[in-house]
Amino acid sequence: MIQESPSIEFRKDILQLLHSEDGKGLGELLENAASKDIIHLIGHLSRSEQMKLFTLLSPEDAAEVMEEIPEAQAIGIIEDMETEDAAAILNEMESDDQADLIMELDDEDAQAILLEMNPDEAESVRKLLAYNPDTAGGVMHTEYFAFYEGQTIKWITENLRNNAEKYKYYQLKYIFVTTLDGVLKGVLQMQDLLLGQAEAPLSKIKITDVLSVDHLAPLDELIEFFNKHELFGVPVVDHDQKIVGVVLRNDILEAQTKRITQEHLESQGIIGGDELRTMPVLLRAKRRLSWLSINILLNIVAASVIALHQDVLTSVIALAVFLPIISDMSGCSGNQAVAVSMRELSIGVVTPGEVFRVLRQEISVGLLNGLVLGLLIGLAAFVWKGNIYLGLVVGSALTLNTLLAVSLGGTVPLILKGFNVDPALASGPILTTITDMVGFFLTLTFAAMALSHLGGM
Amino acid sequence: MIQESPSIEFRKDILQLLHSEDGKGLGELLENAASKDIIHLIGHLSRSEQMKLFTLLSPEDAAEVMEEIPEAQAIGIIEDMETEDAAAILNEMESDDQADLIMELDDEDAQAILLEMNPDEAESVRKLLAYNPDTAGGVMHTEYFAFYEGQTIKWITENLRNNAEKYKYYQLKYIFVTTLDGVLKGVLQMQDLLLGQAEAPLSKIKITDVLSVDHLAPLDELIEFFNKHELFGVPVVDHDQKIVGVVLRNDILEAQTKRITQEHLESQGIIGGDELRTMPVLLRAKRRLSWLSINILLNIVAASVIALHQDVLTSVIALAVFLPIISDMSGCSGNQAVAVSMRELSIGVVTPGEVFRVLRQEISVGLLNGLVLGLLIGLAAFVWKGNIYLGLVVGSALTLNTLLAVSLGGTVPLILKGFNVDPALASGPILTTITDMVGFFLTLTFAAMALSHLGGM
Repeated sequence: MIQESPSIEFRKDILQLLHSEDGKGLGELLENAASKDIIHLIGHLSRSEQMKLFTLLSPEDAAEVMEEIPEAQAIGIIEDMETEDAAAILNEMESDDQADLIMELDDEDAQAILLEMNPDEAESVRKLLAYNPDTAGGVMHTEYFAFYEGQTIKWITENLRNNAEKYKYYQLKYIFVTTLDGVLKGVLQMQDLLLGQAEAPLSKIKITDVLSVDHLAPLDELIEFFNKHELFGVPVVDHDQKIVGVVLRNDILEAQTKRITQEHLESQGIIGGDELRTMPVLLRAKRRLSWLSINILLNIVAASVIALHQDVLTSVIALAVFLPIISDMSGCSGNQAVAVSMRELSIGVVTPGEVFRVLRQEISVGLLNGLVLGLLIGLAAFVWKGNIYLGLVVGSALTLNTLLAVSLGGTVPLILKGFNVDPALASGPILTTITDMVGFFLTLTFAAMALSHLGGM
Repeated sequence: MIQESPSIEFRKDILQLLHSEDGKGLGELLENAASKDIIHLIGHLSRSEQMKLFTLLSPEDAAEVMEEIPEAQAIGIIEDMETEDAAAILNEMESDDQADLIMELDDEDAQAILLEMNPDEAESVRKLLAYNPDTAGGVMHTEYFAFYEGQTIKWITENLRNNAEKYKYYQLKYIFVTTLDGVLKGVLQMQDLLLGQAEAPLSKIKITDVLSVDHLAPLDELIEFFNKHELFGVPVVDHDQKIVGVVLRNDILEAQTKRITQEHLESQGIIGGDELRTMPVLLRAKRRLSWLSINILLNIVAASVIALHQDVLTSVIALAVFLPIISDMSGCSGNQAVAVSMRELSIGVVTPGEVFRVLRQEISVGLLNGLVLGLLIGLAAFVWKGNIYLGLVVGSALTLNTLLAVSLGGTVPLILKGFNVDPALASGPILTTITDMVGFFLTLTFAAMALSHLGGM
């Protein structure tokens, strides 16, 4: 069962073992713990306790804990560790996790750790680092079985037996068959080895044709591949058709989840990756501020529209009550449309070129909801001041501005995506700046037109 | 390659085959198409074209297309189909997809379709429907191999061979061994069958112990399970330890993605599930409005604080420029903290009980960013009007309100979660209503205190 409240007992035990410097006891306790408890625990230890824990644990145990905790946290810990300790732990991790972490370190740390690592491991990390993380090369594992077709079944069976410990964590159990140059020729199932003669080379067994993906294939193409094929994994080949890794279905689903999460955080103003509250306060404040400071400038620009119409406002002070409402409600309506567009882009029911189609589909919704919202706010204004003109001014301003906000909200993400600008990041601020400016302008201009009926409110 | 622009060629071909009513040609074309193209195509057909397509296709082909397209779209199409056509297509789908779709239909449609379906298929759907969709029973498949331990290897091998077509889509290739009552005893790999004598019963082969999960286990526990164990799937047992299904790692990752997406849509005001623009305009407008109408009421409540201080505003009209900025910026700062809390809750580094810990962690960030933002807006006010007091009033109001917004944004999701209220849905409106009210109050109260220095702006 998942524990909703932190396991105080567990943390106490860990702290006691830390105090008595019992690395073995810590390893055993952590191995049997639920990952939620481990994540929670690490987040609640001070940095010096974390350091002590990771140096007391065996590199194998430390690597397992490192793989459980959020990436942003693991990076912070590795950065603060001695290079050789960090390298020993990274040696024990899976290739894709190694690359994910090392990629996020600053260059100097990364190079120092790679030099300390087992040369084979470091070599495979360097290869992975050369790829864009949103490609097959960037998400693949380098742990896979591939044997030259001239090898005998006996030799391979012995190889598998002798390296059982190393192979234990290999997730894809197929055996890929290659030429002497490593060019992918086909695939065997483990049990196929049982059917052949020990002295026969692999080429004598009926080798099945195998699908593969190019090492530069983008994430979208991999998602597409696994939608199409009911496979647990697929070999990755370079431009010479040589096998360089395997991509597992899980990796793709995880990459997809990571992307959706990232987009969500960006749309809420958390940029530059995950934020955890265990990160230093100054870093957190600075990262959030980089987003807020752009927003406050845009806000000042938008509000300058009010300043330009200050004379109307002076005559009809009641309007000041409605300006924040119009600003906020247009933001809400527009963001709904942004969310639908982001979703439709991500599942592929719409492409960036279809701006006009989306516009048509949003205009009717925008008009309907604009009329309802305009009616509500107009009614509220009328009831409050008993003046039908005030109701008409704010009601029609909100109606028109909702129509604009919904139309923009639907189309701006497509346009940004078309120009290769991240729509999760930029849609919100662009939308609200425009709708604020237009909303203020409409309200104050309509009020100016009806000024003779609005005096003294 | 993924096509960024819609494949016009593909759509033309489909329309032509639709016109000549060539079901077989349609099936072949769709079978070889990329799923993104299929999704895009279906979204761009009129409802009557969709109907024609699904009735021309063989039920097998139709089921495959149905499994590719977004759930919300599939439901709309099924609701409009003849019951027997819908039942024929559903018969060909995987159990979890069947249940997902039927669950979303209205009761009458669902019952009618279940009556038309193959009784075995209908029976397994009814079982799945009895479960909460966020539990093992709700996400499991009912396609799995389970044989009585007394069966001979020969019998089973023949059974597998004779039903090869049916078993082709079984994703988990393990063979579960049960007692005569269906109680789970262990697991075999397919290749284990090769090692035994044909006439021997399963019980004579060395059966490996097997992990299982309870049918009522919640999604979080399943995520935990697959974090802990490197398995592709796990059998699901009821309270009598009888096997009732299998949960695949993929299912869990997909359920997780679905949950994150849902939370994101809710936080942006899209409630009641996915919205696709192919849905009827009235439905889309109504669903969005259900959220907007609550927000406009909350907005009116918040703005009433301005109405109560109208006298200050009349004296210092310049304040009207700053009220929307304070409202909007506090919303931005608060939503950043909400996003971090939602993320920390979902990965488990924080639990709902830790409100005070989060409060401590947010207060410092809120204060820092509040000071910077307050300084910026204060400076802007001073530069605009050349009055230091105006700068002090709006600057200190924004500083304090940012502190409040960040503190509330961090803690409100935890508190809501603690009371079992959906934090994705409710955090935003609660946050902005409070910060609007307090922000307006602070600005106008500080202005009232400094009124003698602010006159006539």
